[in-house]
Amino acid sequence: MFTDQPILRIPGPTPIPPSVRQAMSQPMIGHRTQETTELLTQVRPKLKPVFGTDQEVVILTGSGTAGLEAAVVNTVKPGEDVLVIVTGAFGDRFAKICDAYQINTQRFDVKWGEAVNPEDIAAYLKKNTSIKAVFATHCETSTGILNPIKELAKVVHDNSDALFIVDGVSSIGGVETKMDEWNIDLLVTGSQKALMLPPGLTFLAASDRAWKVMENNGNSRFYLNLQKYRDSQQKNAVPYTPALTLMFGLEEALKLIEEEDLQHIFNRHHLLRDMTRAAFKAHDIPLLTVDEFASPTVTAIRPTDFNPEELRKTIKSEFNLDVAGGQKQLKEKIFRIGHMGYCTPADILETVSMVEIGLRKIGKEIELGAGVRAAQEIYLK
Amino acid sequence: MFTDQPILRIPGPTPIPPSVRQAMSQPMIGHRTQETTELLTQVRPKLKPVFGTDQEVVILTGSGTAGLEAAVVNTVKPGEDVLVIVTGAFGDRFAKICDAYQINTQRFDVKWGEAVNPEDIAAYLKKNTSIKAVFATHCETSTGILNPIKELAKVVHDNSDALFIVDGVSSIGGVETKMDEWNIDLLVTGSQKALMLPPGLTFLAASDRAWKVMENNGNSRFYLNLQKYRDSQQKNAVPYTPALTLMFGLEEALKLIEEEDLQHIFNRHHLLRDMTRAAFKAHDIPLLTVDEFASPTVTAIRPTDFNPEELRKTIKSEFNLDVAGGQKQLKEKIFRIGHMGYCTPADILETVSMVEIGLRKIGKEIELGAGVRAAQEIYLK
Repeated sequence: MFTDQPILRIPGPTPIPPSVRQAMSQPMIGHRTQETTELLTQVRPKLKPVFGTDQEVVILTGSGTAGLEAAVVNTVKPGEDVLVIVTGAFGDRFAKICDAYQINTQRFDVKWGEAVNPEDIAAYLKKNTSIKAVFATHCETSTGILNPIKELAKVVHDNSDALFIVDGVSSIGGVETKMDEWNIDLLVTGSQKALMLPPGLTFLAASDRAWKVMENNGNSRFYLNLQKYRDSQQKNAVPYTPALTLMFGLEEALKLIEEEDLQHIFNRHHLLRDMTRAAFKAHDIPLLTVDEFASPTVTAIRPTDFNPEELRKTIKSEFNLDVAGGQKQLKEKIFRIGHMGYCTPADILETVSMVEIGLRKIGKEIELGAGVRAAQEIYLK
Repeated sequence: MFTDQPILRIPGPTPIPPSVRQAMSQPMIGHRTQETTELLTQVRPKLKPVFGTDQEVVILTGSGTAGLEAAVVNTVKPGEDVLVIVTGAFGDRFAKICDAYQINTQRFDVKWGEAVNPEDIAAYLKKNTSIKAVFATHCETSTGILNPIKELAKVVHDNSDALFIVDGVSSIGGVETKMDEWNIDLLVTGSQKALMLPPGLTFLAASDRAWKVMENNGNSRFYLNLQKYRDSQQKNAVPYTPALTLMFGLEEALKLIEEEDLQHIFNRHHLLRDMTRAAFKAHDIPLLTVDEFASPTVTAIRPTDFNPEELRKTIKSEFNLDVAGGQKQLKEKIFRIGHMGYCTPADILETVSMVEIGLRKIGKEIELGAGVRAAQEIYLK
């Protein structure tokens, strides 16, 4: 190994900027003191543009899955009909959470690696008028697809009274998301993806309509009751002791986002995606997704003539480079390169270079440097 | 202010040792990689003696309240009868969580500042034979009482078939707790108290009997389903992306605990308690609790001739010293000094010195140094 520290090119957790790591090494503070009030005063307004909303973005301590569960348990009652659009493992998780709560879960399954067609959802909702909520995944981390959320929001609202609830875990902060303008009712994300933070925080924002539903929802819930978080945060306070270390990091990460500017960040993620895709195209190694719906945050590669697990093992042992494998039905069929958050064009050039060596090491006859060159050409365009 | 950093003498979050802060500044790792496997291999066996158990101690990302809720939702079904022993705000929280789940919650309320008498619980259980679980708080953080958990466990098992479920949030790691020997069925703690970590992790361990109940519990739950954590951890894996930064810290904190030795840690906490109590007794300032049931981790002081909020404000502005106020019915009636986790006799001497100055500043005629001297005498015994 050339480094004792993993080079993280998985789609989350993602690398942490040094200034964020430094911020997190601050001494502890009290959660009912002035210091926490000041921290919330700093971060609350800066979270809103990242979500594209004027609503309060509530901060919960938990994995992204806790955020997804909060989105379910606060909005839908057992026995109600919901539609879950499943384009991969995380759409499937939304469905499994709904199932765990005895919600009547109707799945709209799309072939893994493809995006959902909003017209199909429009047709479904016209036929099925009892749907109370539609759940969708913005970037499906397991396949690297970016679902057309803006268009989906429109067809959901044009064809039903359902709430439109979106998993933005691997998109928010890396991909343009206009929650208010697009009419998303509930939007969830996690800290460990494009927000450049360690895992452990999950964030949710809701439309007025969704808040009204949540306020009148009698479901059993305590820790995940979003109203408590909103009511506390609006007084710059917290209902329970939050992961303050991660909130120190959040304050710094949001400063970095503001400094770089959101539009620049979105453009950078497009560039990272295009460089990554160009590199594999140059080697005629198939990508799982079409260009049109390729996520700016993660790229899945589906090789036909080598074993992705063999490549992953080789680049891990040669370079300590972590890329992700496939999940569930895509297990051992794909590998995934994360390029979100604290990731630069130089990181992609480095990653492609290492992957090329890995490909040679496992016996694939590739032209060394051809992928790097293709990525460089994209950069220079 | 003499320091830009708060001096934390609240009963959690507590100060973080420098080596733990340093451990947490490590670069990020993947949650499905060898690095996480190695991390779990390190921490799992070291957590067990802290709980006094041979059972798996599961690690969840969340506030302590998430751990308390997990203890409820995994064990008891809506409509079942439970007994919640309420000796303060955290017993009350257990009751509120049960209420939120439509559990038939019978409260056994004890005057705040007093410990529960196990004989009273024995009598209650003899009369009320339908109780499925008894919930108790080991150290009641809001009053500084340490309930007699060992004796309570005995009377619960001698007089009923109920599970005995204990909130050990502000005791575990600072106060001797022998989960297996005492026959505690489910034990919960949080990271931000005696474990010397930031908030954001919660830990639970269960007896074989409790696991059997949890496995057959059909309640709606997903993120807080403890079986998923146990099953993953036993393979040194995690079900969802955990707060890895805090787990880096956990690895280091558990090393520190092992190095100091648990028995030494428990003795140190007794000393810190006795020094703190002696200081206020020297000034004839009343303590909320009697010596016999005083917690080694937090001391509540109930002054009769000055306003505790005035004192708190003064020492905050003079020294940036944070001590806690009272909660709910004890609001503005007490103040609380936390002395758990990363806390030494020197910290107590310093704290008492600053509090004495604060008392003079708010106009109380005390003999300067008398409290410090009393604490020193305890130290020298």
